[in-house]
Amino acid sequence: MKLLEEMILAKGEVYPGEILKVDSFLNHQLDPMLYTEMGKEIARLFAADEITKILTIEASGIALALAAAQEMQVPAVFAKKNKTKNLAGDIYTTVVQSYTHGIAYGVMVAKKFIQPQDKILIVDDFLAKGAAMEGLISLVEQGGAQVVGCVAAIEKGFQDGGARLRERGYRVESLAIVESMSEHGLTFREQ
Amino acid sequence: MKLLEEMILAKGEVYPGEILKVDSFLNHQLDPMLYTEMGKEIARLFAADEITKILTIEASGIALALAAAQEMQVPAVFAKKNKTKNLAGDIYTTVVQSYTHGIAYGVMVAKKFIQPQDKILIVDDFLAKGAAMEGLISLVEQGGAQVVGCVAAIEKGFQDGGARLRERGYRVESLAIVESMSEHGLTFREQ
Repeated sequence: MKLLEEMILAKGEVYPGEILKVDSFLNHQLDPMLYTEMGKEIARLFAADEITKILTIEASGIALALAAAQEMQVPAVFAKKNKTKNLAGDIYTTVVQSYTHGIAYGVMVAKKFIQPQDKILIVDDFLAKGAAMEGLISLVEQGGAQVVGCVAAIEKGFQDGGARLRERGYRVESLAIVESMSEHGLTFREQ
Repeated sequence: MKLLEEMILAKGEVYPGEILKVDSFLNHQLDPMLYTEMGKEIARLFAADEITKILTIEASGIALALAAAQEMQVPAVFAKKNKTKNLAGDIYTTVVQSYTHGIAYGVMVAKKFIQPQDKILIVDDFLAKGAAMEGLISLVEQGGAQVVGCVAAIEKGFQDGGARLRERGYRVESLAIVESMSEHGLTFREQ
């Protein structure tokens, strides 16, 4: 997606350890126009797929999930981390390894929001090693629903998460795929 | 806001301990049409105020902040909880007491996103004792910016957070104010 690639080039910052900081428009400060356009692009990509629900994980997937949900007119659900008090009872759970933060955390979603007839689109801001996406896939499959596809705003194409999901047969659409990244610059995969 | 009150009556669930569960449309599953309408209502309420930025707190304020930002065409910023790795350096911080979860947690925002000339609208999903709103106000004031107002989707009018903020002189707009709540039903404050 051209607009997103342009914003990454203009405003993204590369740090050692393969960190791409996009906090001025994607995941700390949110550019509303970019989010609206990303929502439209996701709706276009999955226009033929009769999506019934969008699933993401708190916190930084929520904005993209809502933007897509507004365009597709289906509900967005966000899985929650490490909280139980208001969610006790009928929940699906899984564990996600965060490489960014060096911890593993529990993730949960209320069972009532994942029904066997659902055709679910999974979205998140980043796809790197794929741990969060795999956790979300597990939640959908625990509920007996169908994963129609996985969308990331930014995929780190030099890490293996996207390739592994595609090998497993999932449709993965990333709005921008960073092919390489260093202090000398950043290149995108042609799509 | 009529639509929100109707959805609370139709789909909200009251539990002992003054818990109002609205997870099927507001803070676990998100109803996209409701969010779009709430964004429009917030834009209408503050149309004359030259808002430059919306500030909220992860996770459940993000959707409302984005919906308002899309209508007002200004950036939304969400303050982060308990994370440092990608945010080290120039941050404002404060501590928020969560009565829902019985813990206190650190909250932070990058300094670059709060500038002295900013006219900031604070939004969150719930306003009860007001701890999260007060934390966000502190972040704005640390940056020398102006708090133009505070918006909650749902205010628990029988708790003191809203009254305390109004006494301190802040403009507080709640899209629905629950006046009383029990197993026998729920009433709203006339606005």
